[in-house]
Amino acid sequence: MQVAIPLYPRFTALDAVGPYTVLAFAPGWTVTFVAAEPGPVTDDRGSLTLTATAAYADLPRPDVIVVPGGPGTLEALEDRALVDWIAQAHEHTRWTTSVCSGSFLLGAAGLLEGLKATTYWALLEQLAEMGAEPVNERFVAEGRIVTAAGVSAGIDMALALLALAAGEPTARAVQLAIEYDPRPPFDSGSALTASADLTERALKLLS
Amino acid sequence: MQVAIPLYPRFTALDAVGPYTVLAFAPGWTVTFVAAEPGPVTDDRGSLTLTATAAYADLPRPDVIVVPGGPGTLEALEDRALVDWIAQAHEHTRWTTSVCSGSFLLGAAGLLEGLKATTYWALLEQLAEMGAEPVNERFVAEGRIVTAAGVSAGIDMALALLALAAGEPTARAVQLAIEYDPRPPFDSGSALTASADLTERALKLLS
Repeated sequence: MQVAIPLYPRFTALDAVGPYTVLAFAPGWTVTFVAAEPGPVTDDRGSLTLTATAAYADLPRPDVIVVPGGPGTLEALEDRALVDWIAQAHEHTRWTTSVCSGSFLLGAAGLLEGLKATTYWALLEQLAEMGAEPVNERFVAEGRIVTAAGVSAGIDMALALLALAAGEPTARAVQLAIEYDPRPPFDSGSALTASADLTERALKLLS
Repeated sequence: MQVAIPLYPRFTALDAVGPYTVLAFAPGWTVTFVAAEPGPVTDDRGSLTLTATAAYADLPRPDVIVVPGGPGTLEALEDRALVDWIAQAHEHTRWTTSVCSGSFLLGAAGLLEGLKATTYWALLEQLAEMGAEPVNERFVAEGRIVTAAGVSAGIDMALALLALAAGEPTARAVQLAIEYDPRPPFDSGSALTASADLTERALKLLS
């Protein structure tokens, strides 16, 4: 299976690297970071730079697309090369997926009309502007379109898709290979249960 | 707070990017990827390249070090520039930490003698060769030395350290900012509860 992860300026690193790590560990799967042109792309913190090793034109027909989110998504919505590649590649994918605000890019490619979809908690209601029905889930599968919630949610989505494509034993083996036995020190990762104070603090970190 | 994450060939991407994402979201924290010389460093899958933006010599006194693991660790144990930088930087850190097999590099720097420490599940017993007492925990803090288990465990360790350094409200806000509300589709991330078949499958993925 050929997986393509498009990178654009000010993406959130874990949105891309979480699913990458899950899928790149699967036997027979290759994951390629793509951009308009091969080269370095810097994240939302300005301190992490990943290399895109292929251009969109080099990967017209990946089996799976994982579109990361990040503060750069808003600007990327105007990036026709990226949005057109998503729309065209989607015609042949097994799954077209997103993490975090990456779902807005699926929306810009015209893929979310009338579908249930999710995104980063702080942007959930806005997803309706893309024609989607916003759903507060860790990830939402609507046929070939799968959208995940914020940042770390891409890890859970990738494991679930891997189980469907390669079988549960392989997905479980990858989970053990990356020792994904999460033990967060706090129970503070969900906006559904967050206090107003916690939500305000988190939003400040993003601005 | 200044955090330095050293990169070396065939590191595991999530070992570095998990803690990076947690700590880079914290207000007033900067995270820098370092190597012997600034430049691109490619991971264990051969398909992800991160840029080191500083040389070891540029960051002699970071507040926190996070040493990632990966199949490249074995070769990195012979990398004197890396091991010496860890040993010297440790003299002034608040925390010197590792993820996965990165703990062996702390060991090579002479930092684990007589301490409880952890590492990737498949390597746990071998950690005794570094003078450490291997402990099967998500992460282990022995004063300024903190070692985490495999790959994804670095996220949990980073959140716990952030709470100590910046306060629990900040750590909780970062957890919400990265929507770290893990929902793994399977309960297969721990070697303690894995069947022999699952363990064998996971080990095959690593070879």
